[in-house]
Amino acid sequence: MSAKPLQVDFPRLKSDVEALAAIGRADDQGIYRMAFSEGDMQARNWLRERIVQAGLELHQDGAANLFGRLAWDPDKPSVMVGSHIDTVPGAGHLDGALGVLCGLEALRSMKEQGISLKRPLELVAFSDEEGRFSGMFGSQALCGDISPQWIHAARDLSGVGLTEAMAAQGLDANEALSAARSPESLHAFVELHIEQGPVLDELGSSIGVVEGICGLKRWDVRLTGVANHAGTTPMLMRSDAFQGLAEFSVEIGRILEEHGGPQSVATIGRVELQPGAANVVPGEARFALEFRDLEESVLYDLSDAFRRTLSAIARRRGLMFDFKVVSELAPVSCDQRIRQLIESTAQAFAYNHHQLPSGAAHDTQQLARITRTGMIFVPSKDGRSHSAAEWTSWNDIQAGANVLLNTLYELANEESP
Amino acid sequence: MSAKPLQVDFPRLKSDVEALAAIGRADDQGIYRMAFSEGDMQARNWLRERIVQAGLELHQDGAANLFGRLAWDPDKPSVMVGSHIDTVPGAGHLDGALGVLCGLEALRSMKEQGISLKRPLELVAFSDEEGRFSGMFGSQALCGDISPQWIHAARDLSGVGLTEAMAAQGLDANEALSAARSPESLHAFVELHIEQGPVLDELGSSIGVVEGICGLKRWDVRLTGVANHAGTTPMLMRSDAFQGLAEFSVEIGRILEEHGGPQSVATIGRVELQPGAANVVPGEARFALEFRDLEESVLYDLSDAFRRTLSAIARRRGLMFDFKVVSELAPVSCDQRIRQLIESTAQAFAYNHHQLPSGAAHDTQQLARITRTGMIFVPSKDGRSHSAAEWTSWNDIQAGANVLLNTLYELANEESP
Repeated sequence: MSAKPLQVDFPRLKSDVEALAAIGRADDQGIYRMAFSEGDMQARNWLRERIVQAGLELHQDGAANLFGRLAWDPDKPSVMVGSHIDTVPGAGHLDGALGVLCGLEALRSMKEQGISLKRPLELVAFSDEEGRFSGMFGSQALCGDISPQWIHAARDLSGVGLTEAMAAQGLDANEALSAARSPESLHAFVELHIEQGPVLDELGSSIGVVEGICGLKRWDVRLTGVANHAGTTPMLMRSDAFQGLAEFSVEIGRILEEHGGPQSVATIGRVELQPGAANVVPGEARFALEFRDLEESVLYDLSDAFRRTLSAIARRRGLMFDFKVVSELAPVSCDQRIRQLIESTAQAFAYNHHQLPSGAAHDTQQLARITRTGMIFVPSKDGRSHSAAEWTSWNDIQAGANVLLNTLYELANEESP
Repeated sequence: MSAKPLQVDFPRLKSDVEALAAIGRADDQGIYRMAFSEGDMQARNWLRERIVQAGLELHQDGAANLFGRLAWDPDKPSVMVGSHIDTVPGAGHLDGALGVLCGLEALRSMKEQGISLKRPLELVAFSDEEGRFSGMFGSQALCGDISPQWIHAARDLSGVGLTEAMAAQGLDANEALSAARSPESLHAFVELHIEQGPVLDELGSSIGVVEGICGLKRWDVRLTGVANHAGTTPMLMRSDAFQGLAEFSVEIGRILEEHGGPQSVATIGRVELQPGAANVVPGEARFALEFRDLEESVLYDLSDAFRRTLSAIARRRGLMFDFKVVSELAPVSCDQRIRQLIESTAQAFAYNHHQLPSGAAHDTQQLARITRTGMIFVPSKDGRSHSAAEWTSWNDIQAGANVLLNTLYELANEESP
């Protein structure tokens, strides 16, 4: 940490946030900048102009990831900062965009202030973080994690292929294979993002020091009983699949307490009963069980406990139980040294800060495969995100940008680890 | 009870059951004789021929209810027996049909055996018991419980009006208003029906002496919390509407034990979560709560207990709770003297028999408004009904038909009460 921490030009950052928020906006329904849509392309053009105006070196790779480079030297590992500017449909103005704009402001400030840098800095805006075409196209491509088959198979929910969507914008999806970066070309990756959860807002903290990104397991579970007439089947003669699910749901809290860590979460977000009529005892209950934690071993223990409890309930109630694993993501730890840098910067500014995991997925999850990573969270008002109600106070945005700037400065100038 | 009980001609009854089962059948998908469909009209024609062949007086009222009358005298109150021959889509061969055919066989046997009768006997096959056009058109009309508005409004699920459907078969729905019978014209009504539940089958009883028909209340309940990201919202910061529902569901058993009667049932058969995604904490849970009992006071107590428990759970979990009553049916008691007649007949034949309520609705429920009623159940294999898997052993059908025959004989000849 330099004796006197660096500061961003906050009015300029604010004006950028407001300008980008106007692109792809559909009045009060939020923002529509789905990957490679017209809104996304307009936002990319706007960002290109900003990068050039800032005097950064503009670059675009084969996956259409956009870069702004400072003190660029292809032979030196760079410190990369960024996030994404694509959105879900009806999005808020901060998810992804704030990380890109704070990164831009950090590089712009350093250039303007003539800060000397041991290593190059790169701003990146990754393509399709929101997964219109499944996965995280841009950051996966940069980490060498896509194949020709992946590109060919990638489609959005209405069946439009990634290849078509990119071709319509004059881009060749197959070029994405050339976007892979070697681990040697990177010194570290840092991402600033809104928390998308309520923790910092509840605590009144401006800065979240992200410990890592939770891994998750998502199961499609089925309990099968016997569908029967709700009027003619006495309670003791029922094999009610929903009652089995209800009993399991009530056990989730105990299972997390006994087998989970302090930050484990588990959710039943989707339930379908068959036949699903008011006057029929449910013969089948299908539901999604999703659970997350920072530790792989905790996810393993939870899997085991959930399976035992479901089996026991099914056995006792005369139901059949089966499940399939629909998705699994390994947890990712943020680099200890970068976490310390973020924390000490927040302390230098006397910003309230708090350690927490990221429960949501981010480009950082991909980058962690090839380099050290760090993440800075700023609060989400009431935890809202993926919604026009998304909001972070300007004070907290300023705090996040200042912490990012100083963290990048330290990483660009630290002794090689 | 006559010293030697009367017996039906069982081979003749069996051949009728098999013949009617072939009408409207779609191979292994069950039977399609929805009210006023081609299948229903074919079955009606078949029944008309049977009534005439049996030497009964054929009659059809304005609601297209079909009658076969024995020893008819419009000045004497009659003993009426019957059920319905319309079906749900994909039905079994016994629901409704068996009651009509056993009634036919009873009247035919008495006529053939030259039994003398103090009162006329009437067989009836009611129109649309299964409620294609909502309610129970035929028996409601006979009980004077329909209006021109009702007829005008009655539509099936695909929007076809009762008036149209009847007109297509040369019938005038408005004539149904003339179908009403006075209480004075009836001495009693008896219906034989399959149980549609598992009780008699489990007990190995051939005959169910129905105590009454359960009333029911059906609520559409909504618990409202806050939809949040399933990864970023810690367990203690959630207002999970589904967890509230699960906790309530687990309390249903206790509530029935504390506030219900021995035969009370309650069911959650339909559940919808919003937004209903695996990675979102449910912000809303809507569900159908249905409960039934033979006693109005028990239904009242259960309503109260369910409402208290839902309110308490909602309060404790920071959810909002509201509900609306979607339907309410009052319970109906079967006549004590007719229940005794059924029981003593079963004893005379040494048939295993058992007292039980009807959890399902039947035409008897309508008839109870204007006359004394009795119901005889025969077992449903595994409790199955409204399905091609519906089955009752021929022995049990014979037992039911014999009990019905003797019960009708006694009612037709008893001293006026």
